[in-house]
Order: sequence, then structure tokens, then C-alpha cells
Amino acid sequence: MAEKSRQQPRNVTQKLIASHLASGRMKAGEEIGLTIDQTLTQDATGTLVMLELEAMGLDHARTELSAQYVDHNLLQTDNRNPDDHLFLRSACEKFGLWFSPPGSGVSHPVHMERFGKPGKTLLGSDSHTCAAGSLGMLAIGAGGLAVAMAICGQPFYLNMPKVMGVKLTGMLPDWVSAKDVVLEMLRRHDVKGGAGRIIEYYGPGLKHLSAMDRHVIANMGQEMGHTTTVFPADDAVRDFLKQQQRVDDFERLEADRGATYDEHDEIDLGKLEPLIALPSSPGKVVPVREVAGEPIYQAYIGSSANPGLRDFAVPAMVVKGRQVHERVSFDINPTSRQILENLVKLGHLNDLLSAGARLHQTGCNGCIGMGQAPATDQISLRTVPRNFAGRSGTEEDKVCLCSPETATASALTGEITDPRDLDIDYPVFDESTSFYVEDRNIRPPAQHPELTVVEKGPNISTLPQFDGLPDKLTAPVLLKVGDDISTDEILPAGSRILPFRSNIPAISEFTYTRVDASYPERAKKYQDHGSMIVGGENYGQGSSREHAALAPRYLGVRVVIAKSYSRIHWQNLCNFGILPLRFTHPEDYDDIEQGDELALEALADTLEQGKRLSAKNTRSGQRYELTHDLSDRQIRMILKGGLLNLMRESLVA
Amino acid sequence: MAEKSRQQPRNVTQKLIASHLASGRMKAGEEIGLTIDQTLTQDATGTLVMLELEAMGLDHARTELSAQYVDHNLLQTDNRNPDDHLFLRSACEKFGLWFSPPGSGVSHPVHMERFGKPGKTLLGSDSHTCAAGSLGMLAIGAGGLAVAMAICGQPFYLNMPKVMGVKLTGMLPDWVSAKDVVLEMLRRHDVKGGAGRIIEYYGPGLKHLSAMDRHVIANMGQEMGHTTTVFPADDAVRDFLKQQQRVDDFERLEADRGATYDEHDEIDLGKLEPLIALPSSPGKVVPVREVAGEPIYQAYIGSSANPGLRDFAVPAMVVKGRQVHERVSFDINPTSRQILENLVKLGHLNDLLSAGARLHQTGCNGCIGMGQAPATDQISLRTVPRNFAGRSGTEEDKVCLCSPETATASALTGEITDPRDLDIDYPVFDESTSFYVEDRNIRPPAQHPELTVVEKGPNISTLPQFDGLPDKLTAPVLLKVGDDISTDEILPAGSRILPFRSNIPAISEFTYTRVDASYPERAKKYQDHGSMIVGGENYGQGSSREHAALAPRYLGVRVVIAKSYSRIHWQNLCNFGILPLRFTHPEDYDDIEQGDELALEALADTLEQGKRLSAKNTRSGQRYELTHDLSDRQIRMILKGGLLNLMRESLVA
Repeated sequence: MAEKSRQQPRNVTQKLIASHLASGRMKAGEEIGLTIDQTLTQDATGTLVMLELEAMGLDHARTELSAQYVDHNLLQTDNRNPDDHLFLRSACEKFGLWFSPPGSGVSHPVHMERFGKPGKTLLGSDSHTCAAGSLGMLAIGAGGLAVAMAICGQPFYLNMPKVMGVKLTGMLPDWVSAKDVVLEMLRRHDVKGGAGRIIEYYGPGLKHLSAMDRHVIANMGQEMGHTTTVFPADDAVRDFLKQQQRVDDFERLEADRGATYDEHDEIDLGKLEPLIALPSSPGKVVPVREVAGEPIYQAYIGSSANPGLRDFAVPAMVVKGRQVHERVSFDINPTSRQILENLVKLGHLNDLLSAGARLHQTGCNGCIGMGQAPATDQISLRTVPRNFAGRSGTEEDKVCLCSPETATASALTGEITDPRDLDIDYPVFDESTSFYVEDRNIRPPAQHPELTVVEKGPNISTLPQFDGLPDKLTAPVLLKVGDDISTDEILPAGSRILPFRSNIPAISEFTYTRVDASYPERAKKYQDHGSMIVGGENYGQGSSREHAALAPRYLGVRVVIAKSYSRIHWQNLCNFGILPLRFTHPEDYDDIEQGDELALEALADTLEQGKRLSAKNTRSGQRYELTHDLSDRQIRMILKGGLLNLMRESLVA
Repeated sequence: MAEKSRQQPRNVTQKLIASHLASGRMKAGEEIGLTIDQTLTQDATGTLVMLELEAMGLDHARTELSAQYVDHNLLQTDNRNPDDHLFLRSACEKFGLWFSPPGSGVSHPVHMERFGKPGKTLLGSDSHTCAAGSLGMLAIGAGGLAVAMAICGQPFYLNMPKVMGVKLTGMLPDWVSAKDVVLEMLRRHDVKGGAGRIIEYYGPGLKHLSAMDRHVIANMGQEMGHTTTVFPADDAVRDFLKQQQRVDDFERLEADRGATYDEHDEIDLGKLEPLIALPSSPGKVVPVREVAGEPIYQAYIGSSANPGLRDFAVPAMVVKGRQVHERVSFDINPTSRQILENLVKLGHLNDLLSAGARLHQTGCNGCIGMGQAPATDQISLRTVPRNFAGRSGTEEDKVCLCSPETATASALTGEITDPRDLDIDYPVFDESTSFYVEDRNIRPPAQHPELTVVEKGPNISTLPQFDGLPDKLTAPVLLKVGDDISTDEILPAGSRILPFRSNIPAISEFTYTRVDASYPERAKKYQDHGSMIVGGENYGQGSSREHAALAPRYLGVRVVIAKSYSRIHWQNLCNFGILPLRFTHPEDYDDIEQGDELALEALADTLEQGKRLSAKNTRSGQRYELTHDLSDRQIRMILKGGLLNLMRESLVA
């Protein structure tokens, strides 16, 4: 079978996966392991990744290339963000990572400019990592620990997705650009239409889309819930790498003639028109003309969803010699230092400024709610990928997503405007313009990592070392909770708590406080001894945040017994060494009272030998039958005290 | 006498004051009234000014020119700052003010560039308004209400200051610049040495200082506690206005031959060396060489204290083709859109970027703690005017103040560096470089203010209307406090409270809560009826914030009886219609208990006829003798319910 499939014509996705398959079969729905060539981390997720690398005792990144970017937390209103920046910089020296300091730009376009390589895999701790699919890479966003494992040379595991082939034909009309292509996809497939799928674009329409245009489409594919988006590495990619003075990194990668896809779609680019996603979902897409005339407060250009030089140059050419409407805040957010320097060299920056633009620092900025929040009840038009309610910082905001053309036209008129209705010729931006390549400020791995001292500000704490699961455990149930407990209840997010993301002892003080304010105090008394939590159905639903497992483990939780689990949190419990057990008889849940003490014996043998365990309630003498869904690897992990311990052993060996 | 003094030779200060004297005599220490030609407001203080103009029913500004800038609250993390921006913009339309929107720059350099005029007076609700002294203006910082009154055409009152003449001789050596001149003044006179004084510079050394150099010196004169700084309007000022295409606004204004000064100082510019103010006072000045070698985290260029094109161009020329040290955050904060556009045109911006600069939006930014906070325990070198502890946003910060030359040299080496120790020729910046003048984005007063609807977000509330003082008042003492109560105790500052600056009902909920959490609830019960506060010595010391009078008045406080008052708060009480009385016999303070009811009768007659009043304690029957220090104008004001009511009547008439 395998022999035969290798000879079948393959699409680009299949080629990328086949060349990186570490385990499993390329059959939709089956688990596969992929070797990872490159990783990307940003600062908001990267600090924990670095602490994990430290906890595993990594000497030097095992990937071909790993890069750490500082683009999210650029607002320095106290010591915490700059402390993180210094920490990340020193950790990159220590572990052999590239470091892109604050001011160098948004991770995705910078990675594409400086490091992207056709045919490679990229794992990133940011959901828009998929943008690198523009270069013929297999680029996937994942949790921090998965990326830490990849940096240590471990494969990344996922279920083999279906491949949706999208054939592009025709050529975009004037005033319609790449953003309108992905908005059309969102109009058709909405925010869940990509789930379990890789979207691969092909067809004759591709030749009119530059690599950066493809970045726009790949990046925002994320909003369809896809696994990733893939483009071929063709002449447009070669042109881009040539422009970046990296033509040697080019490798052609195209679908075989006769390659097939699991699902099909087709877009005639020539028939597209300017589109806009209305508040507050990227899937709420309508033609701009249907909502034209509404007054706006803000026109926002920037973010990884429209990061290219042309996405700033075209607006500059449109506003040149004109002025934006006096009520409009025209916010320009250069995506990278390179883009900014080229805008300066080509004269576009001053055209934007003279027209009334507010120029902001290079980075993610308002796209992630770091500044540029709109005024109350006012419409904001943005080229960013997301408009979830409140993400802008303003409650009940009215953020719409659109192309740079639509945002700029609306900035001039002061109301939502179909750019085709401007009485202006569509400016021609020549992609081949001689390009200034900036890369001196992105620092390569240190020559002498052994000399590096990792710099930790007062709010950055080494990850606590956890010991392995004891063979025999008699411990109190310090908390009994009901069904559908979310990770937000286990460990809340929010501005009061988020700043402690790199400080497990501090963040653990918030564990379960939304359910029971006295829980952390109670748990700390049993921190060394160990304690348990009893839960109902669907335990740990919601956000994938790893702190919701790390913090309880820090407080001494060794076992959770629930009726059922939400998948990602269950995985996180295993990863951080908490044993997740299930009631064989769900009615036993009712028999246990908070404060009861449960006894588990011969855990190592029992877990390794099968699925059946039992716990004895020392108060009532009652014995409960329990079971689990752990793989052998997960059992090993939990017995060792978590994945970090397991990995540390393997790195030493 | 007056005749004679007019014939005596006058210095520039005397000429400016004499030509604007509305009342009083030019005798040091005596109160004078000055007619005000121009006003300047920024957004942090301007919102209350606009609400005051509204409360007074102003139709159109009575000044020659009034300009409102948005430069402080540019970090938009929720709706409040952008709501303020829209409010300010619409209020400017309504009242006939110029409006400089966010992105156009810091008030002081922009005002100088576009509006500054030799021989004029400028009153601004920002302490660094004095910077316009660089153009031969009399420019004074004041509270918001004083500026609101000036916009309504009222004089500004102050005590006639002494004039300190500072003779400048010689010429600055290489690597020493204007900032070192004012740092030398601070080294000599420290942070209180300018109190009650206007500092006037003169002498042959002036001819080597451009108008923008003088702005640096005048601006930071504020840190000596001066009333203001004055320079003559000479050829350097004409050159500046010519560069700004406003040469018609030039009027020569120089001291008469033989003019004298009340005090004297002299600086030989040729003997100056690079200086630095150490944490955490602008007066802690030492030569840079004495602290050279200390590693730094940050080099920060910008703010109204080093706002000129040369203050960015010289750093750009120094770093051109070089790279800043990899540990250093090299933060560039363009002061105005004009400066930024000229940096682009002259190629300096890309030199800064390529060297590793982080380019921030145009505005006050980190200078007022809005971003760019340094990391923990790390040295930050800044060209800003102030380094008070914690002002950067980081607790126990280490902010040093220095010239752009010193900051840039240190950015290159990564440690505090005397720029003379760089092995680089001092770059020559030609001030006469053809200059691009930007002013399209600063909006003139509206043509049809009657069409304007003032836009108020949910957090902006019309000022409450207060009624006049009743003739007979029997009201409870709802609070009795001790000596030295500060305005911070009356109405705390801080990030939880500050956002309500434009919302008196909301901010009043914090009144006196640091002393007695239940006070606002208690007071509101008597909001219509009226209540009193009894205080000890030095009541209302500390910050001049007007909210500390406005908020208690909103809660119904009609009378304060104290042993003595701090001057500015006493004035604010009068301005907002609270009657401030003193105990004739301080021991009566002890007789009054919180909760007692005091009766005052025939207030209008008694106040108008003399200084003696009495209050009867309805509990004990005891009668207390009271007195006051009010002028006739203040009595009228209080009987009317405050200055705003008085002014409204006068504007109607």
C-alpha cells in the first residue's frame, strides 16, 4: 500500500507531510508525527517556552532554525514587559535561538522575510504561524510546550487533516486585493469551515498573487479554524526570496500533475469585489457597498494579516496630496523594520504622514488590543485578522475587517467607502522595486552560549521542579466541583493575572479562586504531601492555557478524578504530571465529599499493567473503581512527574 | 514713579510685562494682572478646561489664538482616551480653538513651530509652557481654570517675580549642547533655585544658540521652579520663523542698553562639558565622565526638553553605519509630525532605524510614563526634562537626564559614555537646511461653530451647576480632619481614579476615601442641603488639582472651617464656591465633634461688611468666632456659587 501511494500524484500538502513524517500514516483522522525544521515563538507565549527549555536542561536548539520575536507586549508601562524582553534575549543566547528585538517587527512577516524556506516545516506558538504557508512551508500554530518539545528535537503530533484544494482562476480587478480573497473564503466557509483541514491553493490565478499576497490569505485562514494553509513554492516565491537576497533558499515545490484533494472549492478572482467583515466575527462578511456611508472613527493599516510593503504603499499612493477626513484616526502600524525602511526610501511614509497618518511603532499593537482602541460606539476599519468583540480594548466595539484599499478610501471620505467609488486611478505598485534588505538587528545565536547568564526580572521565576508520582498516595480531596468546569475557572485570565505568566508561584495564588477563594490557601498546606480534585463531566473545557495544569500541580495536586475530560486540558494534566482518572461508575462522584481522603496504591504497577484502578475513601471505607485513557508514553510521563522531566532525562542521555 | 520707570532701560521681561500689564505694579512680590494673547492646553488638562468653558457659556475664545493639543494620553487601551480626543476636537470647533490631533506632536514644540510670536503672552495648562520663552514670549504654565479664564479674556494674576539675568559668553565645545547649559543651571541652582524668579538669558553667547536650543533651556527651566524663562527675539528667532515660513510674525525684542536684573549669573559656554542628572532629581547633576562605564538598558531621545530637528539629526549622524549595543533599547520619540517628516526627507530616520532604533509615535510618550518604562534595576538615559522616582512607570527606576549626544554615545557603547570619548568627529548639523513645513493637519477654528455638537463619551460629564451660597446655613460637620491634610487625601490621584478626570459625579465617589471610606455616602445624603468640613493647620497642602475642590462641592460641601490653609487649595475652594473660614481661636477646633451641626447667619451681609463671623453649635449652644482672608472679588465669587457662575454672568452681559 505505502509503496503504491508513494507513486500516486501528490499535492503540495502531501509532499510536505510525506517528507516530514516521523510516525503514523497519511490517512485523514489518524495521528501523525512530523519532524519540525523551524520554530517561531513570540514574547507573550515565548517566556514560558524558555522556562520550559530551562527546566528540560536543553543545551542548544535541535531544530535547523528557531527564532524568538518580541512583537506583542511592546507597551512598557512598568518593569514587567522590558524585564521579559531582557529575559528572552538572554534565553536565546543560552539556547541557540535567533532573537528579534522589540522594534524589528511582527513575527510572521519577519520570519517570512528572513527565514522562511520552501519545503520546510515550521511550528510556532502563535495561531497565525500558518502565514508561512505562503512560501510553500507547512507552518502550524501550537501550544508553547509543543514548540518547546520541537526545539528539543521532538516531533509534533496531530491528526492527519483533510486537504481542501481551492482552485484560483482569473485576475483580481482594480481596488480588489488579497484580503478580499480570504474574506471571500470566510464568507463561504465561516469561522469553523476550515476545522480539521489544510487549505491548499492552486491554479492559474496564483500567478497574479505575490508571496506577500499569499501571506495575507494564509494568515487569515486561521480564522476559518484550519490546521494550516499551503501554497506552492513557484516563481512568485522565488521572486520574493530573490528580493530578500536569499534566492539560494528557494526550492520549487508544486503539486504533481493529476494530484487530487479531499475537498474542492474554486474562486474566480476576476469576479471578486471589495468585502468587509462586520462586527464581531471574521466570518460576518458582506460586500463593502452594502454598508457604505456609515461614518467611521478609525482606519487602521497593519498587522500580520496585511503586512506587505504594497499594503502600505498602495494606501500611501491613494492619499498622496490628499488629506484624510478630519474625524478619522488614520493609524499606520508598520509590520517590520524592513517594511518601514522601504516605505521611507520610496517616499511613501511622508505621503502617509502629510495626509494625516498617526505612525505607530513596529509591532502587533492594536491588533492584539495593545493601544489604538476605538472611541465608544464608533466604527473602526482594520486590515487585521480578527474582530472578536472587545479585542480592540473597547467594550462593545464596532471593528470591521477589510483590505488596505477599503480602509484607505474610507479614511479619505470619513465613511465606509467602496474604494471603486473614489474618483482616483488605482495606483500601480511595482513589486519588483529595488528592495532594501534589513537584517542587522535580528541577532543570530550567540557564539558562546556558555557565557550567558539568563536575566530574570523579579516577576520571572524558574519553573518549579516536580517530583514523580508516588507509588502509594493517600491524600485529601481539597476541592469537589461540578460539570463543565472551564480552564477560566481553574485559572482566570485577565489583566490582573496575565502579568504573572512567567511566575508560577505568583500565578498559582489565583487557582480556582473564582470557584472557591480559600482554595489556594488550603491547597498550599498539602503542597508537599499532595492533594486531589474531584470533578464532573467535561472537566477543563475552554482555553488551552497550560497554566491551568501547571498552577494546580504547583499547589500539590497529584490526581484529578472526573466523570469525563475536555481533550486539551486532559493532555495538559498529563504533560505537567497530574494523573487524570475517570470514574468507572459516574454515580460514585456523589459519594465523595470535599475533605474526604482517598487512598491509591501500587500506582506504577497498576497503571503500567492496565486500565483498572481503585481508590478507597478512608472516611467511609467505600472503594471506587477508576479507569484512564493514557498511552504508555503518557503513563511514563506522569510517573516521572511530567513531560519536562521525561525530556530532561532524554536530553541528558 | 510709573512715568519715570517707563523711561528706565528695560530688560526683555520688563518689556513683556509692561506691555501686558492689566493691573498692579511691576514691583517684585506685588500682585499683577497680565493680559493673555495666546493659550495652550493639552489633553490631560484640556478636557476639564473645555468643560469649564462650556459651564461658563463661552461663545468664542477671546484670545488672539488658543490651541488645544493631544499629546499626553495617546495610549488607547480602552474607549476613554479616544473619547476624550473626539470631545476635545468638537469642543475646539465649538469655542473657536485650533486643534492639533493625536499624531501631530508635543504641544510645546508644535506651538513654537506654528504659533509662537515674539512679544506675546502665552498661558498654558502644562508646566513646560515656559518653553515658548525661546521666541521672546512671556509663556507661563498655570492651572486649568486660570487658562479657561484667559480663554474668556480675563487677565492672569501672579506675584511680580524677580528677574535673574544670566549672561552667556563663549561658544559650546564639540559634543556639548543646549541641554548641558540648562543642566549646568540646575547643577548651580537645584530644583528650587528658580522659585519666584523669571530667568532671562542675554549676552554674546546667545548668537551660537538657535531658537530650538533656547527652547531646550527655557523648557527645562521649569525644573528649577521658575515662573518662566525669557530669551530675546533676535536674529536666531527671525531665522527660525523664516524657516517656519512665518517671518512676518517676527518682531525684534531685546533688552535696552543698560537694562539691569534683580539677580545675576553668568555661564561661559566654552567651559561646559557633558553633564547628566542622576536618579531621581533633575538637580542631581554631575559631569558624565564621573559616572561613565555604568551599563545601560535604554537610551531615549525625544520630549519637549530636546524637541528640535538637530536633537534627532545629530544622533542619526552619530549612529549612521553603526549599530547600537545589542542590550540597549534605543527609543526614538519624534516630537512633531514636522520634525518626523524632515527626518525622513534628510535621510536621518533610516540611519536611526538601521542602527537599531525603535521608532515610537509622535507625542509625549515615556516622558510622562506612557510606555517605554525601563527594566528592573536598569539604567535609562533620557533627553526628557524630569526623572522623579517612578515617573517612568517602573518603581525604583534609575532614570538619568542628559543631552542627545550623551544618550547616543551611550547607546553605541552600552554604558554611560562621555560623547567626547567616542572616536568619531562631532557631526555638523546645518540649521539652515531647507525645511519642510507641515501644518495641514493642525485644524483652524471652525467656520460654523454653531453647527457643532460637542461629542461626549460615556465617561465625560457636563460640569454640575452649583448654586450660590445661601444667606443662612445650618449644616452638619460630616468630617473633622487633623493638620496637614493634603489634596491627595481629599482626592487621590492614581490610575484607578485619573480616568474619571472629566466626570465629576464619578470622581467624587473617591472624595476623602483615604481618610474615611464612608464619607462620600454620608455626604451625598446632604448633597442638596449642604454640609461642612472642619480641618486643622495647613489644610489642602500638596498638588494643585482642582478636583479636590470640585468633588467636595459636588457632594454638597458649602463651608470649610480650618486653623489655616495651603494657598492654592484655598484659592481653588473659592473658585468653586466653597467658603473657607478660619478659627479666630484655634482651640475652638477641639470643641467641635464630627456630626455636630453648625449655624451661620446673614452670610452675604457679614462677608461683604467685614472679616468677623460666628457659627453656633446647635448641639452645645457654643458660638465660635471665625474670620476669612477673602478679597471682594472672591466674596462675590463665593456668593454666586463660584468663578464659573460669575464668569457666565459676565459673558452674558
